Amino acid sequence: MERNIRLLIEYDGSRYEGWQRLGKGSGVTIQGKLEEVLGKMTGENVELIGAGRTDAGVHAYEQVANFHTDCQMKCWEIKYYLNRYLPRDIAVTRVDDVPERFHSRYNAKGKKYLYRIAIGDVPCVFDRKYTYYCFDKLDITAMKKAAKYLTGEHDFKAFCSNKRMNKSSVREIYDIDIYADARELQIMVYGNGFLYNMVRIIVGTLIEVGKGERQPEDMIRILESKDRTQAGVTAPAQGLFLQEVEY
Amino acid sequence: MERNIRLLIEYDGSRYEGWQRLGKGSGVTIQGKLEEVLGKMTGENVELIGAGRTDAGVHAYEQVANFHTDCQMKCWEIKYYLNRYLPRDIAVTRVDDVPERFHSRYNAKGKKYLYRIAIGDVPCVFDRKYTYYCFDKLDITAMKKAAKYLTGEHDFKAFCSNKRMNKSSVREIYDIDIYADARELQIMVYGNGFLYNMVRIIVGTLIEVGKGERQPEDMIRILESKDRTQAGVTAPAQGLFLQEVEY
Repeated sequence: MERNIRLLIEYDGSRYEGWQRLGKGSGVTIQGKLEEVLGKMTGENVELIGAGRTDAGVHAYEQVANFHTDCQMKCWEIKYYLNRYLPRDIAVTRVDDVPERFHSRYNAKGKKYLYRIAIGDVPCVFDRKYTYYCFDKLDITAMKKAAKYLTGEHDFKAFCSNKRMNKSSVREIYDIDIYADARELQIMVYGNGFLYNMVRIIVGTLIEVGKGERQPEDMIRILESKDRTQAGVTAPAQGLFLQEVEY
Repeated sequence: MERNIRLLIEYDGSRYEGWQRLGKGSGVTIQGKLEEVLGKMTGENVELIGAGRTDAGVHAYEQVANFHTDCQMKCWEIKYYLNRYLPRDIAVTRVDDVPERFHSRYNAKGKKYLYRIAIGDVPCVFDRKYTYYCFDKLDITAMKKAAKYLTGEHDFKAFCSNKRMNKSSVREIYDIDIYADARELQIMVYGNGFLYNMVRIIVGTLIEVGKGERQPEDMIRILESKDRTQAGVTAPAQGLFLQEVEY
């Protein structure tokens, strides 16, 4: 395969069983849909490598993926072809030739995830599919304080849904930024990598802090416990977006 | 009826046959849905007066409506009740007692409509339901120039779909504001009142100017013609939002 092509992909994950291709007869995935169209386009059996394996229902503003091919189409032709044949909830926003050794997952140095929470007494009707609605008033100051304890390098085993995780669960969170206006609260989590469900469990735990059900200082104990049952609930997928991948 | 109550309403018009209640056996409307819930709440036959009778598929960030009632519930209770029983694509964002003579339609002094057009080679997947996608590159300078000719007091008969309109078709447009970033172009039309389909025909005509199919100066001739066939196409409903009503 003489070319390595990188795609930037935007998708509404509502209808999909997540990024990763499943076995035959299983649900529809973003990777599966893209590989299907890439296969038709190239006549090859394309394997698309995604930077982040987003869960069922999770969206992406900018997923990064790459594939190797002998296809000779120009980048703009590939972009046009893909957008023509992809369903309307998946869009390829950019196509580039990249060096042969570029690997969208292994080379990723950082990822930003955005979690959107509808707040206030009336959730916005236009963002229903893209936010999680929290009726309770949230104490943002407490949430920011709790977020500080999670920032930095820690063993995030307590924030991982995968019980059989036997690789290292140490990750570094560079920053957690919390911003709110009258109707929406956004939590941006920026780190070098994330465990299974890690962002959603962090968000679920921060929401419990915001409701006053936990104290910011509890984060220390939860991290130390390395016990999933000590952290908060996993926040619903629909509010989560893969925002950016850094290299 | 001793109280006059004003509602501010946000709705996603995608599923509805517009604002105005239709006869029995006809489609579902926003007014119809609201009156149904208000009827249950008050035990009265409520007539809800809306400021703008939006068409099928048109959305609202802030529609204004009022109704007379003897119901003794507090405003916050009414708001809570309505949002509890309304479908999730209609939200009542505010409820207030207003003077007996307040009439949401007759007293309206100005209305702002926003039209959202997805531009660029890839439309945003998250705004599909709320934008009209225009593939062609649009000349915004020409569109702004054309908009200037439409601003002010004019007979807008050429921009009205109702052929049997026998009342005055003179209206004043206070301002047309056009703004674009890389992926979306927004046209805000602000005026003292609008004829049937007027905003959508203005937008359709401005898009044709943007594509270079018409010249900005053509607006003069179109206005003078008072002939609907001289103006551009009616832009699709899904991109249109009633943004604000002024009193």
